[in-house]
Amino acid sequence: MLQRSIIQGRGFKNTHANGSVSGFQFQVRNPNYRGVAACLIDGIEISIAGVDYPFDAALWTIEGITYTLDELRQTTDVRWSLDEVATITITKPGGLPAGVHELSVCIFIRRSYIPAQFSRSPFREKAKVVLVSDGAFDGPKLAVSTYSYSGDMYTIMTLEDVMADIADIGATGIEILGEGNVPHYPNPSSAWRDEWFRLLAKYKLTPTNFGAWVDTAMWLSRDLTIEEGTAQLRKDITLASELGFTSVRPKFGVTSLQLDPHPIWKDSVLGSLDLAEKLGIVICPEIHSPTPIKHKVTQEYIRFIEDTKSDKFKLLIDTGIFQTAPVDDGHEGIEIKNGKRPPFLEPLNVPMADLKEIMQHVYFIQAKFFEIDDNLHDLHVPWAPIMQTLKQANWQGWLSSEYEGRREPYRGKDQVRRQHALIRNLLP
Amino acid sequence: MLQRSIIQGRGFKNTHANGSVSGFQFQVRNPNYRGVAACLIDGIEISIAGVDYPFDAALWTIEGITYTLDELRQTTDVRWSLDEVATITITKPGGLPAGVHELSVCIFIRRSYIPAQFSRSPFREKAKVVLVSDGAFDGPKLAVSTYSYSGDMYTIMTLEDVMADIADIGATGIEILGEGNVPHYPNPSSAWRDEWFRLLAKYKLTPTNFGAWVDTAMWLSRDLTIEEGTAQLRKDITLASELGFTSVRPKFGVTSLQLDPHPIWKDSVLGSLDLAEKLGIVICPEIHSPTPIKHKVTQEYIRFIEDTKSDKFKLLIDTGIFQTAPVDDGHEGIEIKNGKRPPFLEPLNVPMADLKEIMQHVYFIQAKFFEIDDNLHDLHVPWAPIMQTLKQANWQGWLSSEYEGRREPYRGKDQVRRQHALIRNLLP
Repeated sequence: MLQRSIIQGRGFKNTHANGSVSGFQFQVRNPNYRGVAACLIDGIEISIAGVDYPFDAALWTIEGITYTLDELRQTTDVRWSLDEVATITITKPGGLPAGVHELSVCIFIRRSYIPAQFSRSPFREKAKVVLVSDGAFDGPKLAVSTYSYSGDMYTIMTLEDVMADIADIGATGIEILGEGNVPHYPNPSSAWRDEWFRLLAKYKLTPTNFGAWVDTAMWLSRDLTIEEGTAQLRKDITLASELGFTSVRPKFGVTSLQLDPHPIWKDSVLGSLDLAEKLGIVICPEIHSPTPIKHKVTQEYIRFIEDTKSDKFKLLIDTGIFQTAPVDDGHEGIEIKNGKRPPFLEPLNVPMADLKEIMQHVYFIQAKFFEIDDNLHDLHVPWAPIMQTLKQANWQGWLSSEYEGRREPYRGKDQVRRQHALIRNLLP
Repeated sequence: MLQRSIIQGRGFKNTHANGSVSGFQFQVRNPNYRGVAACLIDGIEISIAGVDYPFDAALWTIEGITYTLDELRQTTDVRWSLDEVATITITKPGGLPAGVHELSVCIFIRRSYIPAQFSRSPFREKAKVVLVSDGAFDGPKLAVSTYSYSGDMYTIMTLEDVMADIADIGATGIEILGEGNVPHYPNPSSAWRDEWFRLLAKYKLTPTNFGAWVDTAMWLSRDLTIEEGTAQLRKDITLASELGFTSVRPKFGVTSLQLDPHPIWKDSVLGSLDLAEKLGIVICPEIHSPTPIKHKVTQEYIRFIEDTKSDKFKLLIDTGIFQTAPVDDGHEGIEIKNGKRPPFLEPLNVPMADLKEIMQHVYFIQAKFFEIDDNLHDLHVPWAPIMQTLKQANWQGWLSSEYEGRREPYRGKDQVRRQHALIRNLLP
């Protein structure tokens, strides 16, 4: 699906020619109610980064071929369809800096059925667009979790849109939610499996972590048994492996306000390690706020690693534990009574020293965040020290964007771009 | 694609059992960020038409099977996916009246990984939903034009979504824009043609009118020739026929402020009548504001009908000509200078007597409208006299909804439902 706005968030980037940055480009959808012969396009006025570009300055790329406006006006059977974007390219040596830009456009289309004096119809739009540096990045491997697009997937974005978005910012890994993004989970059709691998190849993406749940409180009458928990975990490990993933994050139910995982967790994992070993899958419990690193639950996971000496059980760190400021603008499915923030939403502010100490046990990091402003400032999560810590440890795992802020349409995709612009700027 | 809101506009209707109205139902998408085992669903509170229904009052239909809440809680391998709606049914003898209703829901989902005291997570939403009478309708055949969904198609609605919406309100015809809704127009792939006929069969829809354009001012250097205009029209007639349509509306360019069609129109039509005859296609020029019925352009079309004696050239009436009030909240691609409404946007208020006079020449009616309020009152177009006139003339053509109001996301689909609720109420 195209983005609803005329200006598309995806596709905004600097262009290169002869080894240097030659300009920038972005994509727009056809603003008219019908497709048109491309000769009816009558230019685009652009304003960005303090510069106004006249209607005939841009190059237009339609169906893979690039035209000046004059060339476009003389085409005979080129068409700008409703379901195809046009790529607009502006020559500007040095391009634009990474970050958030205000972009204004006015697209002109001539409409023959309106008297000539008025037939050149203007379609205007303004949008904030995010440019992510495509230069070197000296840090961990970058991925994005489909969780970032919650609410948008299956409504305004397809799985392919998500993958195209991830590839467009130069990330190379994709994390998914098993029961969520796999149609007919846990038994996807072979047609869907084929499509999954086709899309991975098309967008050059590597499957990373597979989110799974062991819903110990599935029924009101009784808890899951060890056998059932083990069966669930083995099912997810198998499916994850079949789809090319290398880790599974099982989220077990909890049994206390301290978020102790249900006691079946240990036997369920023990009963799955052989399969994990066989299929090359790392089982990763998630260290997630309000559980810090120096907490009995986390420490118990580390003891488990030391006891079993398995390299198929490691930690997944959610960067929400490093939050320095609370998020008070809503959490899905959680209602705040009396306007008072409950203790589990207080920022944990886990010190970097705690992360350093356990770095050898960390297999995967979910780069949880909530809001990055127009100046690429994260309001809650301190990326500079986090990235420095990962760099100093020379950590080589996947850092996977997990946007969890307000679920306004298209906000996830915009915020993920901001996060990658921010993170890439930190370790150039 | 599902609708972005939890409450879906499509699917809201009264239910029937044993020959009487037994209640009502609507559809919701999974509000959580993941799919869940259906046993984790913990009910839905509903408020509509002044009645509150407790969390366990509704029946849930998931993947085609209907459950009480108790039954749902005991399921073992039923799942509510992110990409599937659940249908919620409430027993209420007599059902709900046709019209706009305020619906509030709170869906509960238990989440095992949240401490038991808080694990029952509420997801709330309010929406206005439109119930269209499914009773008898004693009027013309009802269709909807894809134009109604401009901006939404290819962004938040697929062609299939549009067809499902049209079928959901009991309409049986679909009007499309040729260069707009036919991918790779004018040469759609055979795969797309197959899909088109598959969808028509699935939603029991009949193709009606095919919107086409003869862009006489395609190039700045010269106008289209008669040969080029004829070729364009013949191309559209052929494609329309191949896709099952029975009329083509060619929109010719104009040459004056009085909207005189480009002089090639007559020879282009004359040169296409043989093909129209052969393929059973009626060519329909559009009578559209600011051109009324008693206007030289319309009268010239009627003379052409009388002169050629062809039954393959008839009129298409756009109900915008009957507007009694102006629309001042925006027209795409038209900018109002100095805040002064230009003459071509003044309501024409064409009298019903004018329509009656030419009824025998009218093949198709585009039910143009801009806004219908919560009381099913159209702010601009007088549907009562229009429907009475059609009824008195016993007119048997297609009346095809053409929403042209503000292009906010999903507004078109909601307004089309309102128009059908309104029109069906007028001729029960």
